Amino acid sequence: MIGASDKRNKVGSQVLTNIMAAKFDGLLYPVNPKHSTLFGTTSYKTIKEIPENIDVAFITIPNVQVPAALEDCIEQNVKFAVIITAGFGEMEDYDTLGRNLVDRVHSILKRGDLHIVGPNCMGIVSSQCNLVGLMGLGFPPLRKQVNASIVSQSGTWGVTTIRAGTIHQLGFSKFVSTGNELDLKFEDYLEYFGMEDADTQIILGFIEGLRQGRRIIKLLEEIKKPIVFIKGGKTQGGTETAKSHTGSIAGSYQMYKALFEQYGVIEVNDMTELVDFGRAFSIALSQDPPKLPRGNRVGIFSGGGGACVLMADDAESEGLVVAQLDPKTIETLNQILPSYWSHRNPVDLVASWDFNAYSRVLKVLLDDPNIDAIVARPPIGFSLMYESKDVIEFIKQSPLSTFNIPLEMMNSFDLSIVRDMGRLAKKSSKPVIMPLGFYSPEYNKEYDIVRELDKRGILVVPSAPAAMRILKKLGEYYKYLKKIKIS
Amino acid sequence: MIGASDKRNKVGSQVLTNIMAAKFDGLLYPVNPKHSTLFGTTSYKTIKEIPENIDVAFITIPNVQVPAALEDCIEQNVKFAVIITAGFGEMEDYDTLGRNLVDRVHSILKRGDLHIVGPNCMGIVSSQCNLVGLMGLGFPPLRKQVNASIVSQSGTWGVTTIRAGTIHQLGFSKFVSTGNELDLKFEDYLEYFGMEDADTQIILGFIEGLRQGRRIIKLLEEIKKPIVFIKGGKTQGGTETAKSHTGSIAGSYQMYKALFEQYGVIEVNDMTELVDFGRAFSIALSQDPPKLPRGNRVGIFSGGGGACVLMADDAESEGLVVAQLDPKTIETLNQILPSYWSHRNPVDLVASWDFNAYSRVLKVLLDDPNIDAIVARPPIGFSLMYESKDVIEFIKQSPLSTFNIPLEMMNSFDLSIVRDMGRLAKKSSKPVIMPLGFYSPEYNKEYDIVRELDKRGILVVPSAPAAMRILKKLGEYYKYLKKIKIS
Repeated sequence: MIGASDKRNKVGSQVLTNIMAAKFDGLLYPVNPKHSTLFGTTSYKTIKEIPENIDVAFITIPNVQVPAALEDCIEQNVKFAVIITAGFGEMEDYDTLGRNLVDRVHSILKRGDLHIVGPNCMGIVSSQCNLVGLMGLGFPPLRKQVNASIVSQSGTWGVTTIRAGTIHQLGFSKFVSTGNELDLKFEDYLEYFGMEDADTQIILGFIEGLRQGRRIIKLLEEIKKPIVFIKGGKTQGGTETAKSHTGSIAGSYQMYKALFEQYGVIEVNDMTELVDFGRAFSIALSQDPPKLPRGNRVGIFSGGGGACVLMADDAESEGLVVAQLDPKTIETLNQILPSYWSHRNPVDLVASWDFNAYSRVLKVLLDDPNIDAIVARPPIGFSLMYESKDVIEFIKQSPLSTFNIPLEMMNSFDLSIVRDMGRLAKKSSKPVIMPLGFYSPEYNKEYDIVRELDKRGILVVPSAPAAMRILKKLGEYYKYLKKIKIS
Repeated sequence: MIGASDKRNKVGSQVLTNIMAAKFDGLLYPVNPKHSTLFGTTSYKTIKEIPENIDVAFITIPNVQVPAALEDCIEQNVKFAVIITAGFGEMEDYDTLGRNLVDRVHSILKRGDLHIVGPNCMGIVSSQCNLVGLMGLGFPPLRKQVNASIVSQSGTWGVTTIRAGTIHQLGFSKFVSTGNELDLKFEDYLEYFGMEDADTQIILGFIEGLRQGRRIIKLLEEIKKPIVFIKGGKTQGGTETAKSHTGSIAGSYQMYKALFEQYGVIEVNDMTELVDFGRAFSIALSQDPPKLPRGNRVGIFSGGGGACVLMADDAESEGLVVAQLDPKTIETLNQILPSYWSHRNPVDLVASWDFNAYSRVLKVLLDDPNIDAIVARPPIGFSLMYESKDVIEFIKQSPLSTFNIPLEMMNSFDLSIVRDMGRLAKKSSKPVIMPLGFYSPEYNKEYDIVRELDKRGILVVPSAPAAMRILKKLGEYYKYLKKIKIS
């Protein structure tokens, strides 16, 4: 850790303490000429004094001092340097010094095997060895799940995605903020995640502009893992902003779009979508062959007629088909539901308070050969009311407390739906998605429900349009897989 | 309350206890031939025994008994009956009895002044008198705010909107579930909310199909309050579903769309959007003249370059313009920000840890005559980490606890940004929106921040695309207001 510091507002102290706090599995050597210890750990004047072989050096010292540090790294046989320091020509018009530094760094790199992440990046993360080598403050502890890896041409965006994903049950394997890509490029990380790293099952990325056209085509052709990208610089305004951000020429968005379509890359437009697709693939890959919709025909059900109407609209707006129920399905549903049920898909359970109706309907629809995937909106979450202070107070004050909102009934209603539907969804090869609408911190337990559903392979998303968009794209990905397996 | 009951699974007990639990301001008379008291309140054999004049009767008795009850209501001079009972021909093919009942009700209504809400509806709500006359269980207590009113052709959808809105700081005045619209129609409620009820400032609606074409045109022409509608039945699948749900013929969606555009009605596609627009108008109407964007030019800023690129894309994708900064603005920002700031809009604060930079930038942009509205993504929410059990545990275990994540610093950072930006936004006539991304119940306090921002007139939404869409539509509404004032 070259530039290690104990001063709160220094990047060198942020990176150092983030590494220490996350309990990195390996050995950590702070380097700072003015200290002999930092936070109780021996500190070294230069990297050359360190008695062991170094795998990776983090560098946060001022830009003009970086070349000398890199020369030391080469002398010590260091394999990788993560240069977090900025000021390497990224603001072309304002930084002749930085441009000269880049030339110096390039000539230093020719002398050895050292490779560089950055400069001007936020760092790297690897959950396999508990390495949180990031600038910034307040990262949540890593969830030890091996799943998605992120390569991001925006550091802050990438780090926010980690936080968002961690909150929403998405496990991460590795993260890299690519910075200026002076040496290692987006394409290198993509190759590593896609072709080499067995711990990466899904690749998420933020692209502003790529530099190696032929190589990216070859990589996308060869990588068999799901890739979900967000592309910055889709419009003129975005492209100009990207130019001033990373100095990258974003290139024609149409070209990227065509490339993504040809090679089964899923393109999303915001972070929520990115995280949701990460979670969707994480569930899909939990089965072999992956649990993907084999076609466009979606089965829909809910206890509310309005929700059914809107979900049918959402399905068709996204290019899906509201499945035509098999006559056998209608017959079976006639036996399960009141006579005035909708008699078609979407299946309207007409506000039924029959606890078992929802899982029964799910079973029938999963068995229907005309249906490729299910979107269901069961009335779960009533027990969550009890998380709200207002409601607790209200129940206490009410003489009807034992009657009006019976907590046990609500809890068992929620749990039985989650368990029964989860059991059915888990063993089916058809995806099941629930747009549960509003999650809210007033109802803490809502996330428990989301977690329980997630465990059972049911994806919870914030809205029905989001659910339909995900199914549509998963279906396209299935077609892509079929195409590349055949060819 | 005709059909009042103490049996848990009866709709009559749900409505009764919902009214009692919400502490209705007026007098409540349970009606049930088999009880003399219900929950400690005197119960009556028939409505004719009640010694007072009745304003509104709720009816939950079986459909075949409803005509007789309505005859009693007319005899007692009751003005309104809310018929929650279903079975009045809404499932045309399966219900000849229901169709006959409708004919009987129509002929009874001719004998007096009684008007009917429903049948087959979920009920009505009025926060002015604490009336929660709804079927169903577990409604949160009303927040006593006078603001949006909802008219919904889907009961469950409408009730879910109340819950979602209540959670998200949207105050409600009144709610009506229109049901089969045997007597009173969607158009009647719209007229009341739009032309008569001073407590309704914003109208939210769910439409499946309207029956009175000329009248709706005249109403939309005359109503000066903001209207936000969601239309079910936009696609063939949705239209067919609507037909089996409310029996309504949804009509050509293109016709509705044209109507909405002509009369300044904002059309949304899901519940999140509906609630967000409700909140947006609630803030806009807190000023006179309303705080609406006078044009398309948006000022954008963030501490992350990637977020700036994506927000510029989002703005242009929604048809907004990334504003060209006034030269004076650039000069002032040169004095506030490090030399390597973006020198253009979006203003990239380059991951600054200067607590005051964000509010200073907001002030400069609000003063720029080239900017009509602001979308800002400041780095707030770090203090929220302390809400997570994981993080609290992690801090306790870490020897760096006093250093790595200083809670006080984070708290004061969050608070100072919220207060300073809030003060500036409140007195400006330009809207300020913050897409804060993920709210999560792991970080309870996030909602405190959202609430504090809301108080100060800053709208928080889940994503930048949502922020841009809202600004675009608010701008169109401003143009509509200008047009109708001129003509």
